[in-house]
Amino acid sequence: MAKDKFALGIDYGTESGRVVVIRVRDGEEIGSVVVPYPDGVIDDKLPGGPKLEPDWALQNPRDYLLVVEKGVPKALKAAKVGAENVVGIGTDFTASSPMPTKRDGTPLCFLKEYRKYPHAWVKLWKHHAAQPEANRINEIGRERKEEFIRVYGGKYSSEWFFSKLLQVLDEAPAVYEATDRFIEAADWIVWQLTGKEKRNTCTAGYKAMWVKGSGFPSREFFRALHPRMENVIEEKVGTTFHPLGEKAGGLTAEWAKKTGLREGTPVSIGNVDAHVAVPACTVVEPGSLVMIMGTSICHMLLGTERQMVEGMCGTVEDGIVPGLWGYEAGQSAVGDIFAWFFEHGVPDYIHHEARKKKVPFAVTLEKRAAALKPGESGLVALDWWNGNRSILVDVDLTGLLLGMTLATRAEEIYRALIEATAFGTRQIIEAFESKGIAVEELVACGGLPEKNQLLMQIYADVTGREIRLAKQLQTCSALGAAMHGAVAAGRAGGGYDTIFEAAEHMAETQKSTYKPRRESHEVYNRLFKEYQALHDYFGRGSNDVMKRLKGLKREIST
Amino acid sequence: MAKDKFALGIDYGTESGRVVVIRVRDGEEIGSVVVPYPDGVIDDKLPGGPKLEPDWALQNPRDYLLVVEKGVPKALKAAKVGAENVVGIGTDFTASSPMPTKRDGTPLCFLKEYRKYPHAWVKLWKHHAAQPEANRINEIGRERKEEFIRVYGGKYSSEWFFSKLLQVLDEAPAVYEATDRFIEAADWIVWQLTGKEKRNTCTAGYKAMWVKGSGFPSREFFRALHPRMENVIEEKVGTTFHPLGEKAGGLTAEWAKKTGLREGTPVSIGNVDAHVAVPACTVVEPGSLVMIMGTSICHMLLGTERQMVEGMCGTVEDGIVPGLWGYEAGQSAVGDIFAWFFEHGVPDYIHHEARKKKVPFAVTLEKRAAALKPGESGLVALDWWNGNRSILVDVDLTGLLLGMTLATRAEEIYRALIEATAFGTRQIIEAFESKGIAVEELVACGGLPEKNQLLMQIYADVTGREIRLAKQLQTCSALGAAMHGAVAAGRAGGGYDTIFEAAEHMAETQKSTYKPRRESHEVYNRLFKEYQALHDYFGRGSNDVMKRLKGLKREIST
Repeated sequence: MAKDKFALGIDYGTESGRVVVIRVRDGEEIGSVVVPYPDGVIDDKLPGGPKLEPDWALQNPRDYLLVVEKGVPKALKAAKVGAENVVGIGTDFTASSPMPTKRDGTPLCFLKEYRKYPHAWVKLWKHHAAQPEANRINEIGRERKEEFIRVYGGKYSSEWFFSKLLQVLDEAPAVYEATDRFIEAADWIVWQLTGKEKRNTCTAGYKAMWVKGSGFPSREFFRALHPRMENVIEEKVGTTFHPLGEKAGGLTAEWAKKTGLREGTPVSIGNVDAHVAVPACTVVEPGSLVMIMGTSICHMLLGTERQMVEGMCGTVEDGIVPGLWGYEAGQSAVGDIFAWFFEHGVPDYIHHEARKKKVPFAVTLEKRAAALKPGESGLVALDWWNGNRSILVDVDLTGLLLGMTLATRAEEIYRALIEATAFGTRQIIEAFESKGIAVEELVACGGLPEKNQLLMQIYADVTGREIRLAKQLQTCSALGAAMHGAVAAGRAGGGYDTIFEAAEHMAETQKSTYKPRRESHEVYNRLFKEYQALHDYFGRGSNDVMKRLKGLKREIST
Repeated sequence: MAKDKFALGIDYGTESGRVVVIRVRDGEEIGSVVVPYPDGVIDDKLPGGPKLEPDWALQNPRDYLLVVEKGVPKALKAAKVGAENVVGIGTDFTASSPMPTKRDGTPLCFLKEYRKYPHAWVKLWKHHAAQPEANRINEIGRERKEEFIRVYGGKYSSEWFFSKLLQVLDEAPAVYEATDRFIEAADWIVWQLTGKEKRNTCTAGYKAMWVKGSGFPSREFFRALHPRMENVIEEKVGTTFHPLGEKAGGLTAEWAKKTGLREGTPVSIGNVDAHVAVPACTVVEPGSLVMIMGTSICHMLLGTERQMVEGMCGTVEDGIVPGLWGYEAGQSAVGDIFAWFFEHGVPDYIHHEARKKKVPFAVTLEKRAAALKPGESGLVALDWWNGNRSILVDVDLTGLLLGMTLATRAEEIYRALIEATAFGTRQIIEAFESKGIAVEELVACGGLPEKNQLLMQIYADVTGREIRLAKQLQTCSALGAAMHGAVAAGRAGGGYDTIFEAAEHMAETQKSTYKPRRESHEVYNRLFKEYQALHDYFGRGSNDVMKRLKGLKREIST
């Protein structure tokens, strides 16, 4: 192993960070350490501080530092890799997860005088309290026909950068004034490690209205949002963004000391968890749709040209790999729906059979569901338990299940829910193809594919496309981060010059794939027509019953 | 008790018969005995005979005789009532449950040469294998603009008399030829007890196309159904029908001996279980909708004139009490939906809490559901788990549940199902009122009201109407049968001259009632609008997805 070189990948998730040690020549994972965030997701009350309102979700940036401090030495030790053989470090982050800092990068929440302001902390991607701000942004954006409305498929999300910044200004103007820099955690961690504030094009393009070549919306737009925001770009954001894989700088002496790594070890520009996974799934060309499948699904696709596709979360030039347009779409609940059903919908006879056979009840449920043929249950569902991200971009849509009789059994409902999420993915594929962007195959990674063979086969049968699986299913983002670390090092530094080279050597998919079965696909074509009719009827305004029921629910609860 | 007189009521249900001894002066139930049918519902294979096809449901008429033979002596003994104080006997039956007999009333299935023919047995009300015949009847009826199409709200059911008779002819012409009389079990049992074949107007009017004053459809109609049926009325059915409460005859010597009753004890004309319950619920005038609430709901209403109301199961002059039009509507699954949910939809945490509190899980579920406010769950359902009887008359409709989120809990679904069945009842009420037939209050009997307070309150809140409960909730039909027995006796014989008198003295409702709460009613008015929109969209042909899914299911299963 003496000649082998390694790259570190640091993957910042929602509850924890993961550090992996990856062999540069073949992408083999040599060591992996998970460091849970001590403060986790802060959605009830601030540590030692006031209670939060509903829909808030914050984080403590100190937890991000801890991942490096504890995780890197442990991972190196586990991998038995010396610092001299680490060629580069890459990171990836949830997004948009921005925070306000002072000019030197100190988060406001680290300062005594701001500690008790919720707005001084990191707003985690799933912070949903900035909906009024998002509404204002979209309204003004549409009035002014701003470019970003098109980039984001017609709607800018409450989860994104400027919605969150505008909420700070609306609700805590003092915090806004004290903010020298409002910055994605993805860029902040790189700043900490290298001492240089260098922001990445990916979060800027997907979350912050930045467009390669033309930059941000105009001063007039920001002034229309709020008079104090007129110069927000120059004052708090910056205008220079750096492409993925570029070296942001070398590891500082301080961090070299803390981690045992060498000072100056190249650190890559920041990246986003879903986007960084794409080359780690071997995908660096158009035609392969990458699905990062977990509680939700992110769908990532590369295209040679820009097309306006309905309901995209973003369409960004060089947003995933250089030279291509990166499309991002998504389903807001997938694994979450199954988890819901496991908790709220599994009756006694399933538990009873599972105990008798001494297997987890999910195994019993899957076995029974797998024994059914497509169409046999007579059920169809809309997978909107957490709204619809792509292609309708509507958080107020809700779930639907149709076709129950007195003979309907739990495993039939379970299968109908799986099928509904597969139909949701097919709906996204058809949105791409309707604009001439081909989807020839699917490549999956994430937690779901490993656990659920039935689900993967149904996705193949419903979409009529073969599905490859990433070799590192669950650590795909961390691998992708390490690949970008290798690119930051460059060939001269023991890594690779481009992400294309890195993908060729470091990324791999599994040998066995899921192939669509013709007979099942034909039945699913018929069921998908029913799904589409219901999708359009309830999702496009023919009957807004879901929104009215949600409104009534809110009214009753307050 | 020396001077007290008593009437017997014999109530023939689906699984058993019940004999009650009722005090004539005040309707008090003095004794009650249930006799299960040894052969029960024959839906798998004939006793000692061949296997039945799907959707078949037969009975053995010998079981009906056993109810009298065993039940009457036991009931008299339990009540400590002597034969000399029994003034009359009334019966009621499920309907339509017809059978083929010889001229002397011997069922064909009692004869060795026919015993192995399924068609020689009683076709129970829920025998569903005559759908092709029902379709033919409706097609020809509509072509010829036959009166019965209007009487039955546009559709003659596969459950009814002539569908079942036509199935005999279609599938077993030899049995058809051997049939001297095709007769409702309701009339057959009276024939057995009195030695006289006297048929009742109620089953004839509700199940067999008979209309007071004009009789049956023409010979031409029956010939159009099948050439051999041209003279079916004269040959196998008869043209004389007797009003409810009339004395059919006196108990035969043979049956007097078997039961210990006196020979000649007056026996009333046969009646139907749902219809006989109406006066037993105190209802002998228009304005009060009687709901017989169990696995399904029968809705019975009296009107001063004939109106064509959508989706009625029947509209019959004198069909419930003399001098008024009797309307029958229904929901095909109510208690059955809750039983389905109890089996297939109750998750672990409900069972867990129930065990902890040492109560049945249904109690836990109801308690949690009762703690919710109307509209709080954000859910709405269509109660079509077993199709829709009134007002759409469509067995191919199926259930729907809408509004689920990741936070939806089991008790919310349970409550939504209860609400959906209440909306189904309100839909029926609105069908009546749209034709000017007032529904001022509801009177409930059956198994459901006793068990489920939440359900009754929701029905009051959804319909905006007060609900009274019959005093004898579960034995209402048996009481009604006894009341008709008392009428058969007449005042001179120790009973009453009319059902109105009998109702005044013998029927009673409970003191406490369910009153609609204004606030809940207003929320339910909004939810009902959503129910109606979904009802019409899925039920009236805008989107026949339910039928297509059922069709696909059938296709896949075969």
